[in-house]
Amino acid sequence: MSATTYDQLCATLREVSLLSSTESALSWDQETYMPAKALAFRANQMSWLSGKAHSIATGRMMQKLLDKAHTMKMRDPKAAANLKVMTHDFKRAAKIPSKLIIEESDTASHAKHAWIEARKQSDFTPFAPHLEKLLSLARRKADLWGYADEPYDALLETFERGARTREIAALFAKLKPDLAQIARAAVEHGKSIRPNLLRGNYPITKQQQLNAEIAASIGFDFDAGRIDTTTHPFCTTLGPRDVRLTTRYDEKDFTSSLFGVLHEAGHGLYEQGLPEEDFGLPSGRACSLGIHESQSRLWENHVGRSRPFWQRWLPRAAEIFPQLRKISLEDFLATITRAEYSFIRVEADEATYDLHILLRFAIERRMVRGDLAVKDVPEAWNAEFKDLFGMTPPDAARGCLQDIHWSMGGLGYFATYTLGNLNAAQLYATASKQRSISKAIERADYAPLLAWLREKVHVHGGAALPGEIMEGATGKPTDARHHLKHLRERFVG
Amino acid sequence: MSATTYDQLCATLREVSLLSSTESALSWDQETYMPAKALAFRANQMSWLSGKAHSIATGRMMQKLLDKAHTMKMRDPKAAANLKVMTHDFKRAAKIPSKLIIEESDTASHAKHAWIEARKQSDFTPFAPHLEKLLSLARRKADLWGYADEPYDALLETFERGARTREIAALFAKLKPDLAQIARAAVEHGKSIRPNLLRGNYPITKQQQLNAEIAASIGFDFDAGRIDTTTHPFCTTLGPRDVRLTTRYDEKDFTSSLFGVLHEAGHGLYEQGLPEEDFGLPSGRACSLGIHESQSRLWENHVGRSRPFWQRWLPRAAEIFPQLRKISLEDFLATITRAEYSFIRVEADEATYDLHILLRFAIERRMVRGDLAVKDVPEAWNAEFKDLFGMTPPDAARGCLQDIHWSMGGLGYFATYTLGNLNAAQLYATASKQRSISKAIERADYAPLLAWLREKVHVHGGAALPGEIMEGATGKPTDARHHLKHLRERFVG
Repeated sequence: MSATTYDQLCATLREVSLLSSTESALSWDQETYMPAKALAFRANQMSWLSGKAHSIATGRMMQKLLDKAHTMKMRDPKAAANLKVMTHDFKRAAKIPSKLIIEESDTASHAKHAWIEARKQSDFTPFAPHLEKLLSLARRKADLWGYADEPYDALLETFERGARTREIAALFAKLKPDLAQIARAAVEHGKSIRPNLLRGNYPITKQQQLNAEIAASIGFDFDAGRIDTTTHPFCTTLGPRDVRLTTRYDEKDFTSSLFGVLHEAGHGLYEQGLPEEDFGLPSGRACSLGIHESQSRLWENHVGRSRPFWQRWLPRAAEIFPQLRKISLEDFLATITRAEYSFIRVEADEATYDLHILLRFAIERRMVRGDLAVKDVPEAWNAEFKDLFGMTPPDAARGCLQDIHWSMGGLGYFATYTLGNLNAAQLYATASKQRSISKAIERADYAPLLAWLREKVHVHGGAALPGEIMEGATGKPTDARHHLKHLRERFVG
Repeated sequence: MSATTYDQLCATLREVSLLSSTESALSWDQETYMPAKALAFRANQMSWLSGKAHSIATGRMMQKLLDKAHTMKMRDPKAAANLKVMTHDFKRAAKIPSKLIIEESDTASHAKHAWIEARKQSDFTPFAPHLEKLLSLARRKADLWGYADEPYDALLETFERGARTREIAALFAKLKPDLAQIARAAVEHGKSIRPNLLRGNYPITKQQQLNAEIAASIGFDFDAGRIDTTTHPFCTTLGPRDVRLTTRYDEKDFTSSLFGVLHEAGHGLYEQGLPEEDFGLPSGRACSLGIHESQSRLWENHVGRSRPFWQRWLPRAAEIFPQLRKISLEDFLATITRAEYSFIRVEADEATYDLHILLRFAIERRMVRGDLAVKDVPEAWNAEFKDLFGMTPPDAARGCLQDIHWSMGGLGYFATYTLGNLNAAQLYATASKQRSISKAIERADYAPLLAWLREKVHVHGGAALPGEIMEGATGKPTDARHHLKHLRERFVG
């Protein structure tokens, strides 16, 4: 293959990424600072950009370049891997007509409003027709994309390339009894821990100071990123050296914003570790959500809720918040790893989190298959919840209306949270086998760990499949053993 | 003319405005929040957008639509006025090849860096070659655009449509002795006023609170705008209901950020008052810099440094900053209208400000004419400064290196500051002739004044010429009498 054809492909995709990252910048501004009345015009700006990006990414020029590239022999393995993913992306994107994208975006924009209202009223009924519509759009997309076994495969592919619904279902079925047992034990143990030990007064500016110190200490580069405030924490990338995190503040509990920052900084370290020169190409972007979430969960839970971490940081936190001086390391650790059953996923602790995911995956899969009617979702949700948690959500707001994902058309997403947990434990366990890394971790020095993640995960970007990344880093594809072992050590003891 | 052709023209320009306002959003972010390492990629995003906007605005589609529109008879006067400006804009834009725009943008980006360094070192020499280049680019643009009398006309046209260098030169020549005399008297009087009366400790968050209250009270809509912090205050529009102001804070002097906010909020009120439905069209944008600056100076100086204003706001300021309780209204007003000669334009008071502008206009005009070599600028500057202020800048940083404008290629801009002052005085004097407005002003109720400005200035946008706006609002084109009268009343007494 001539360098020129490949270079032209890369240049075209870099142009697409200029536009999509500009859209990300507008979206970040919308979530952080944009005044309310600017919403309608902002939507126009963003839809222009996404339309243009889509039309370049699926245009005749791309088609021609890809066709030409495929008649040629590739030497460079990275270029070959990129070309494979480019072709995959192009074929998928080209199958979806612009009309359908616009329809989906319009539907989602109405659905989001309806969802916000429905959740406020805790009434699923007004949201149901919107979900119907989004579900039918998702099924149409799945049909256009095509799939191996079932339409859910095609949706999953968007978030976790190469994953199969059947395999995840089997994995989750196998995990379920273990996770349920661990959760039960953890919740039982949690009853002996005082829940409100840390409640107090934590001024936001002081929380920001501590969060920034900690984020910087684990390697987050504030010259290539920042932290702002939003209702729902997120991490977004506006360019190869521009990674924006957000968190939210509870003035009564500094750990809420802090674990938010650790989680998002985990995502951010991944984004900052992607090869800058490949920005816009498959090798310059995150591999999958399951890999992305492994990074956030690793820093949030394996690092951020560990003894060495707080051995170092509790004294510093107590300098900033003097009320912490009277709290022992033991009590502090017990509090931040205290488990209890709760209705809301985003507030769930590590020991019960995956149960929330198993539920959502099962419900979604049945919906997409056509085995569960939208109107029956609340009942199915509550039955499944009762089965997993032994309690019933008191209302839809604390049941099937709690997550934003469906209202955005994001069906097929949830499983990646648990894949992320499994990958996090596996990566952390593997890295920790290296004596230099584990020794440093004992000193709360995470530079060697980050270097390992950079080398094993970050620099490969998304030219490889998630399974290939995991194999390369740990010698095995995703394997649940490590996560279960970690949970047992932490929660069953 | 068929509605369709005109509608298509409007649609095309609205698309251009989607892109250019997106560029404004990126630029705002760059000045306020963007991390340092994001600079290079951000430049790529912005240049893509400006390139695309330029190519649509000067493309064959525009040409065709304009040609077709001109064969038709226009009924609607607003459409006719818009079409005239659209044609004017198109012709001007189409005369400048993209290559030249890119060359200018590259040159300016290097020049800006060189200027920052040169100013730091207070050495004009390293900046000189950059200014040479920008000057020669400006001359090339002037030649491509064409001009009536001299190339400076073509540059001025960018900022003040319809203005003529010769006329401004005559106006300034006539103003000079009066302004110099007023300045002398004001500076002499200023010696009797204690300069540091207000120095103290003013926490930034409290300044922000007061500034926001005041901006809201004069009518700035915070649901359609916001205030952030930058080194140099500015106002920029990201969309029809999205106006961003910035200011800077001096913890020792709350009036610095406050007058910054009043100035920028004046710009912001104008932008928020433009007809939303015409965003992207001439009738939906600001008329000229001289009109824009009239709005900022009116709110900053005529309103913001007046007795009724502080009669209302000094007690409130003293609630927020208790140290102000001991300061009388008389002393306060004397302090915020104290005049002195200073080397730096952006720090200059109202009484001496225009002298800084007269100097810059004269220097620029000679440069553009070719009457003054770039290497001789520092000497010419200092000589002119000595003539106007009776003192000589101690170094280039406090002389010809102080302003950012030239380093951005913004030649032909400065005169609009003084035009703004003249227009501000004229508009304020005319509005105040209405008893209902002047009565309200005495109570520090500025709603009737704003309503008058909305009706006489804002709603007309930029479909009319600046002179037409002034005639429509005051019955006369720009007339210096009002400004001189205002200055004499305030400073000579």
